Formats: sequence, structure tokens, C-alpha cells
Amino acid sequence: MTDYKVIFHIDELVKWNLVLANVTNLLEGVSVSNETIEVEVLANSEAVEYYRNNKDINIKLVDLNKKGVKFIACNNSLKGYNLKPYNLIDFINIVPVGVLELIKKQREGYAYIKP
Amino acid sequence: MTDYKVIFHIDELVKWNLVLANVTNLLEGVSVSNETIEVEVLANSEAVEYYRNNKDINIKLVDLNKKGVKFIACNNSLKGYNLKPYNLIDFINIVPVGVLELIKKQREGYAYIKP
Amino acid sequence: MTDYKVIFHIDELVKWNLVLANVTNLLEGVSVSNETIEVEVLANSEAVEYYRNNKDINIKLVDLNKKGVKFIACNNSLKGYNLKPYNLIDFINIVPVGVLELIKKQREGYAYIKP
Repeated sequence: MTDYKVIFHIDELVKWNLVLANVTNLLEGVSVSNETIEVEVLANSEAVEYYRNNKDINIKLVDLNKKGVKFIACNNSLKGYNLKPYNLIDFINIVPVGVLELIKKQREGYAYIKP
Repeated sequence: MTDYKVIFHIDELVKWNLVLANVTNLLEGVSVSNETIEVEVLANSEAVEYYRNNKDINIKLVDLNKKGVKFIACNNSLKGYNLKPYNLIDFINIVPVGVLELIKKQREGYAYIKP
Repeated sequence: MTDYKVIFHIDELVKWNLVLANVTNLLEGVSVSNETIEVEVLANSEAVEYYRNNKDINIKLVDLNKKGVKFIACNNSLKGYNLKPYNLIDFINIVPVGVLELIKKQREGYAYIKP
């Protein structure tokens, strides 16, 4: 069984560096104590723009995904910013309603963090 | 029994459009799957100004209230912004301390979302 | 047994006045009803700068600590801002990873509030 479960919520583009730093520090902190964690990052509103598959993809995002972090986009927000699934980095998961995902995960025992 | 319960927290005036869009999308997403949800929106700090009963009332606020969304104001914040109960839109609920309401609801199993 | 448990999260310096006002109102609200509460304030990112032991220490911070509020700093953030433990106000607690503390406390039943 996983020791910790957390969902990070981001809805502002300017917060991505902070969120990725938070998640990086978290994975390091948990590995030091040989514990395990499930981390999801749920982006809605303008924050979904960061998932666009272009030349500016943050290598930290890719690296965290390789380490098991799940990155999720709200489909309502994608529509609002005119993003199609094929415009996104290939490992991005899409949920119909971002805030509903936040509720479901908290009900499953995930902690909620909004950097 | 209700399928989902959530309390949204808002303390900045500039976030109201985002919060109302989040709640609107949430209600639509839940109705699609024939599920039910209880939604509360707790405003404190400057965000309570949005509840003022004047000509600028957002029709989305009224519409969401008709759909069952409960809008709440922190009384400490109302005092801080010189708002009396009779200055507010008539369906606004008032609690003495906004953050205490956030704690109580989370203890009752409500998810917490801060857009 | 304590009636309420809450952890406040702050990662922006500009939010300190709001957080301290929230906590002050919360303690007053709880004391009115003769209830008890455990309050922690977890600062990470730039917000840890506020814990610096200099002439600008906010008297409200000291006062809230005397009333039992626990103030915590993320050690990764302290390093990032070149702060050593001896640079901090003496009652500040340090945890290795701030966001991990937020997860642990929520798992222990603490409500989470991000002003």
C-alpha cells in the first residue's frame, strides 16, 4: 500500500515552477525515508496551456512523469483555451471536469495542496 | 445520500469569475452522470464585497443559487468591509467566522477547493 | 480531545497579514463557544522569509505563538532563501519538506486552508 497520496491543484500559469519544485522536493523527501507516494497534478483554467506539446516543454515535467507523477488536464479548460488532445504532451491525462477530479481524489483519501 | 460534497473558498474579488465557472462546470459534470452534489461557496476577506446587493449582481450567482448552491459570507469580513446583512443579496448565508466554517465542513467530509 | 485541527498553508509573503488575521479570528471564534483547536501554520517558498529574526517581527506572530499556534518552516525553502535556523525567530519549527507536512497533517484529520 502507498504511504501517501496527494493531488496538487494549479490554475495559474505563473505557478508551474513552484508546483514542479514542490513535487520534486516531495519525491526526494519521501524516498529518503523509503516511503512511497502517489502524486497527481490537476491543471485547470489557464494552467492547461503548460501542457502544450511545443519546443518549450519543461524537462522537469517530463522527468517527474517518468518518476510516476500523473499530470491531468481539465477538458472544459482545454476547450476554453482551444487545445485538442493531439496538441498536448503525450502523457497528459484528460478528465471531463477538473474540479470533480479534485473532489473524487479527496474522497479517496488524497491530500489536497494548492501552491 | 448525496454523492459529492464540496466547499469552495474565495478570498480575492478577482477570483469570482473563475469560482463561478468552476461551480457551473461542476454541476454540469455531475448532472451528466445522474449524480448529486452539495456545493457551498465560502467568501471571506475582500471577496465578501461581491455579495453586495446593487445593480452589478452577477446573474450567474443568482442562477447557481437557484440550482442549490449555497453562498456564505464570513461575518468578521463583512464587518471589516462595513457591510450589514441588509446590504447583501437576500440569499447569502452568514457565519461568524469563515475559516471555522471551512474546518467544520472538511470534518463533515466536504472536499476543499481554493481556485 | 481537541475539537478542531487545522493547518494553514502560506507560500507568498504578501499573504501573511491575511493568514494572521484568519488565525486570530479563528481562535476568537472557537473560544466564544468554549471549544478547543490545534492550529499550525506551514510556510514554504518565499513565505519563510517572514520568520527571519530581525527588528520587523510582527507582534501578532509572537502573540499567536503564545496562544498555542505552531509556526513551521520548510527546510528546503529555508535553504533556497539562504536562511539558517539561527536566523529565525526562536519558536519556529523546521520540517524537512513543507508539502510532506501538509500531507501528513491532512491524513491525521487536520483541515487544510490556503488563504
